Amino acid sequence: MSSIGKTRWAIAEGYLPPQNGERGRRMVSHETACLLNTGRYDAHVRITVYFSDREPAGPYLITVPAQRTVHLRFNDLRDPEPIPLDTDYASVIESDRPIVVQHSRLDSRHAELSLVTTLAYADR
Amino acid sequence: MSSIGKTRWAIAEGYLPPQNGERGRRMVSHETACLLNTGRYDAHVRITVYFSDREPAGPYLITVPAQRTVHLRFNDLRDPEPIPLDTDYASVIESDRPIVVQHSRLDSRHAELSLVTTLAYADR
Amino acid sequence: MSSIGKTRWAIAEGYLPPQNGERGRRMVSHETACLLNTGRYDAHVRITVYFSDREPAGPYLITVPAQRTVHLRFNDLRDPEPIPLDTDYASVIESDRPIVVQHSRLDSRHAELSLVTTLAYADR
Amino acid sequence: MSSIGKTRWAIAEGYLPPQNGERGRRMVSHETACLLNTGRYDAHVRITVYFSDREPAGPYLITVPAQRTVHLRFNDLRDPEPIPLDTDYASVIESDRPIVVQHSRLDSRHAELSLVTTLAYADR
Repeated sequence: MSSIGKTRWAIAEGYLPPQNGERGRRMVSHETACLLNTGRYDAHVRITVYFSDREPAGPYLITVPAQRTVHLRFNDLRDPEPIPLDTDYASVIESDRPIVVQHSRLDSRHAELSLVTTLAYADR
Repeated sequence: MSSIGKTRWAIAEGYLPPQNGERGRRMVSHETACLLNTGRYDAHVRITVYFSDREPAGPYLITVPAQRTVHLRFNDLRDPEPIPLDTDYASVIESDRPIVVQHSRLDSRHAELSLVTTLAYADR
Repeated sequence: MSSIGKTRWAIAEGYLPPQNGERGRRMVSHETACLLNTGRYDAHVRITVYFSDREPAGPYLITVPAQRTVHLRFNDLRDPEPIPLDTDYASVIESDRPIVVQHSRLDSRHAELSLVTTLAYADR
Repeated sequence: MSSIGKTRWAIAEGYLPPQNGERGRRMVSHETACLLNTGRYDAHVRITVYFSDREPAGPYLITVPAQRTVHLRFNDLRDPEPIPLDTDYASVIESDRPIVVQHSRLDSRHAELSLVTTLAYADR
């Protein structure tokens, strides 16, 4: 199959709730960028994170192997710096090969879960 | 990075629930337009709000600074008039420079939260 | 403002849960197609509903006045026939003028609400 | 009506929660690809499933009859192999005729439901 997708994506919504800490990893509040590379070659991905009141952070560098999906948690980003909690942000995802990007969030601040998901904006 | 996005967006769904008042700002029901400007220059944004049974309201004027994101709450709009609660509406977001727009709603009418999010419609 | 949108849209997901009856209209489970007409002339809309195991239903005829939004509940459609409950369906929305369509669902089968929303597929 | 849609779609997010077993079929956690074929001829659909750490699975073969919708549960796929639970995946949906694809998930791990839905990525 030929590779599917675009090489530049944007997610205008981003927010990591303050952590509540006593749940397992699956249940901790998190934001995920689901990256799919259907092509024959690894995709090298650069993420830049934008804020409302400071300079952007990044780039965060990720590899999505050929014919694999990576469900990347923004909570797990460490290099060059973690994403601050309780802060509005947005992100741009650039790749050297076509990929597909979907954004989802699990919010477990309350007893019940809230899940949201949406396709990211494909730029080119 | 060159600027990403489009200059005209539409959000056909809009609804601000009646307020329940006793929660903190993060937990009050709200609708948000997440605006991202990745470009080198500030974006000047004009929002027009449409209703089912009266003339449109606006324009509401917002600046999204260069390389910043603004997570704008419709509840906070005051000039030229607040958006009425418990009323269906829709909105059009025009910018003099390319931006990306995502729409999300937090509904806290009940003990549990409901979060929804979706990419806005990009027109041009 | 010139009119925004497309003249043919599709919503592949549709499902009206069995009714629980004791809540107010805002809280009854429902599916909504949010239609926005930013143009100077009324839009005449035709909805066709598809099922898994019978011929399509419709057309359902709706007018979205100039510079207005209509948040249409599928539960309220009556002519030529109501949409059956507890049945998977999909819909196509055609208009003689450009409109924007967003799809949302409120599921109140349980104590908590579930809200979903997504942009419809714009065809032309 | 002429047929609506595209012939290749991607869903970058996929996850089947571990099953809780005591609810009815409507309430079991599931992921659904809602497929709509508005055309006059049956659409023959091929689904390939991608993972983070193994070769892709499939193809899964589905027919969407002319002028019908199929709401396909990933949980129900058996041939050539079931989708593993509690595992991140992504999917590509190819059709010999234009279709529209929407993705939704019901997560019933907790007392409350979580529903998400989004339009899939349309490639061509």
